[in-house]
Amino acid sequence: MKIALDVMGGDNAPDINMEGAKRALQDFSLIDKIYLVGREDVVKASCDKWGVSGPRVEIVPASEVVEMNESGLMAVRQKKNSSMSVSVDLVKSGDADAVVSAGNTGAAVAAATIKLRLLNGVERAGIVTQLPNEYGVCNVTDTGANPDAKPSHLVGYAVMASILARNVYGKAMPKVGVMCNGSEDEKGTDFTKGTFHLLKHLEARGVLPFQFIGNVEGHDLFEHEVDVALTDGFTGNVLLKTCEATAKAFSKWLKQEIKSSPIRMAGAMMASGAFKAMKTRLSADAVGGSPLLGVRGVTIIAHGSSSPTAIRNALRVSMEMVNTGVNPLIEEALANLGPIPNVTEVYSK
Amino acid sequence: MKIALDVMGGDNAPDINMEGAKRALQDFSLIDKIYLVGREDVVKASCDKWGVSGPRVEIVPASEVVEMNESGLMAVRQKKNSSMSVSVDLVKSGDADAVVSAGNTGAAVAAATIKLRLLNGVERAGIVTQLPNEYGVCNVTDTGANPDAKPSHLVGYAVMASILARNVYGKAMPKVGVMCNGSEDEKGTDFTKGTFHLLKHLEARGVLPFQFIGNVEGHDLFEHEVDVALTDGFTGNVLLKTCEATAKAFSKWLKQEIKSSPIRMAGAMMASGAFKAMKTRLSADAVGGSPLLGVRGVTIIAHGSSSPTAIRNALRVSMEMVNTGVNPLIEEALANLGPIPNVTEVYSK
Repeated sequence: MKIALDVMGGDNAPDINMEGAKRALQDFSLIDKIYLVGREDVVKASCDKWGVSGPRVEIVPASEVVEMNESGLMAVRQKKNSSMSVSVDLVKSGDADAVVSAGNTGAAVAAATIKLRLLNGVERAGIVTQLPNEYGVCNVTDTGANPDAKPSHLVGYAVMASILARNVYGKAMPKVGVMCNGSEDEKGTDFTKGTFHLLKHLEARGVLPFQFIGNVEGHDLFEHEVDVALTDGFTGNVLLKTCEATAKAFSKWLKQEIKSSPIRMAGAMMASGAFKAMKTRLSADAVGGSPLLGVRGVTIIAHGSSSPTAIRNALRVSMEMVNTGVNPLIEEALANLGPIPNVTEVYSK
Repeated sequence: MKIALDVMGGDNAPDINMEGAKRALQDFSLIDKIYLVGREDVVKASCDKWGVSGPRVEIVPASEVVEMNESGLMAVRQKKNSSMSVSVDLVKSGDADAVVSAGNTGAAVAAATIKLRLLNGVERAGIVTQLPNEYGVCNVTDTGANPDAKPSHLVGYAVMASILARNVYGKAMPKVGVMCNGSEDEKGTDFTKGTFHLLKHLEARGVLPFQFIGNVEGHDLFEHEVDVALTDGFTGNVLLKTCEATAKAFSKWLKQEIKSSPIRMAGAMMASGAFKAMKTRLSADAVGGSPLLGVRGVTIIAHGSSSPTAIRNALRVSMEMVNTGVNPLIEEALANLGPIPNVTEVYSK
């Protein structure tokens, strides 16, 4: 298996990417090669710094870099030789099986959508991120590809993420909910109400390949068996970052409270195994990267603020996604669903 | 000071409200009277159960109850004698200084807006909820009154919440950000971009009574000095509930990890003061209720799942809001701001 890594992507590039690549090569023998894509001088210097060399890596020069504050679409159109574009090109040409980037999310989504093209039946690509819960994981979709989403896009996300829940996380009949400001059917915005009614309509037609459980709220994500939480890319991104920020603040403040007394500190030393287990369980680094569902090939989006561990794990996720091969299953499921009606058509029935 | 309490509001009414009222009367001598509003037989039985009596309480009969899944506007129009409507009527008539309800949020917002009316210059009322951060609190506005908000509504929320940040939380020049899916100026949805540009336009005109700091993300809420985070009522509600759910899951999972070993348990006993301090610091109960900004009088919205402690604290918040008296300051600040231009006007300049 061959993976293209956008070495220039992310707030702390190239170091995080190079260290992450080094660790992935050590840990995952299934990876035959990592293409290290970026400005040749920068990538070479980073290879030397981190001692990365040998037949399992290959430097692929790309003279330009997409900045974090650029418009994604413009960046793809104007910077044909960016590390991100060249990385995606390697998947398009068949040289690589997957691409991993911690760079500008909008640009990664645009590059993958334009160059790799959407799967049959997909209206918009969506990023799926796993939150740990008591039943495994909740696949939150979308977490950033499509901020101004339409209800029909969320129906597509429901199908794609439920395929993932079934084939990667082993849920025979995934439970899918709409992220909302209340669990009652009547709650929500015009957008979430439209999504709710569209899913109810398709449920009545008996074509949904999952169980639609209606509206869900924050606590459902962790406490209840929700395999897929549907949301627009704006709300999903805010939700995800809020989860991470809350867990981080909780840890930090708990540490401060513990450090305020020697007895508390001694106690915390004795219980340190529990804290370490929590860190592993909740760390965003453990997830590493989020698949962009709906495009041909495998595209993994990592956080702009990724650590080397996150990049190592994003490479692991890309390997798992290549192995799982959900794309044909997604096309089949969307074909079985049939055309998605207009929200206005559904309301008028 | 007299406060009207919607005894029938909330998932665990009437008990949570009665116990909360009892504790508030014990703890806060500034409260002269609590009007206990609801079905007479239910309220009387609950008074007997909790031993609530005497000159500081008065039962006000209201024969109807607004259910959690009703449309707010319809409930206010159709159930004129609901405990919520009658509670708000007590503020309208001047008998009460404030109203507290853990009932249907949409109905509480509709009742307050229709019966008490909006302050001069206010387009839409908004709920402000305080999240603890390292600099005091972040006033997240709106957290549920206005799910389908417009950019101009958020400008109004910015002014109202910054008055609160200044006059209740002592910030001389509050820092106000727009909740977004990235900190870069270019990020966001059409809605948040419109809000951003409207605030930039007003900033250039020199009329903002606060410092506009641009787009903010999840981690900014806790780690940086953000006094006000602006958002539509849908995203704000999802954000708030996600924070609460994450903190709760974190606590629960940490407990599970600790219980898995006797040494960890002994250590946790020694550090128990730290856990207790965290519980106090992060509990949604400690906040209790959120003020509805922009309406005449004082309206406090409590969580549907409020505990007695939350109701006790919602009554405390209502008392503080009556004492602070920010409404005239809000009207003055909005008058100084002048008319809010259309987003399309701002873009075309």
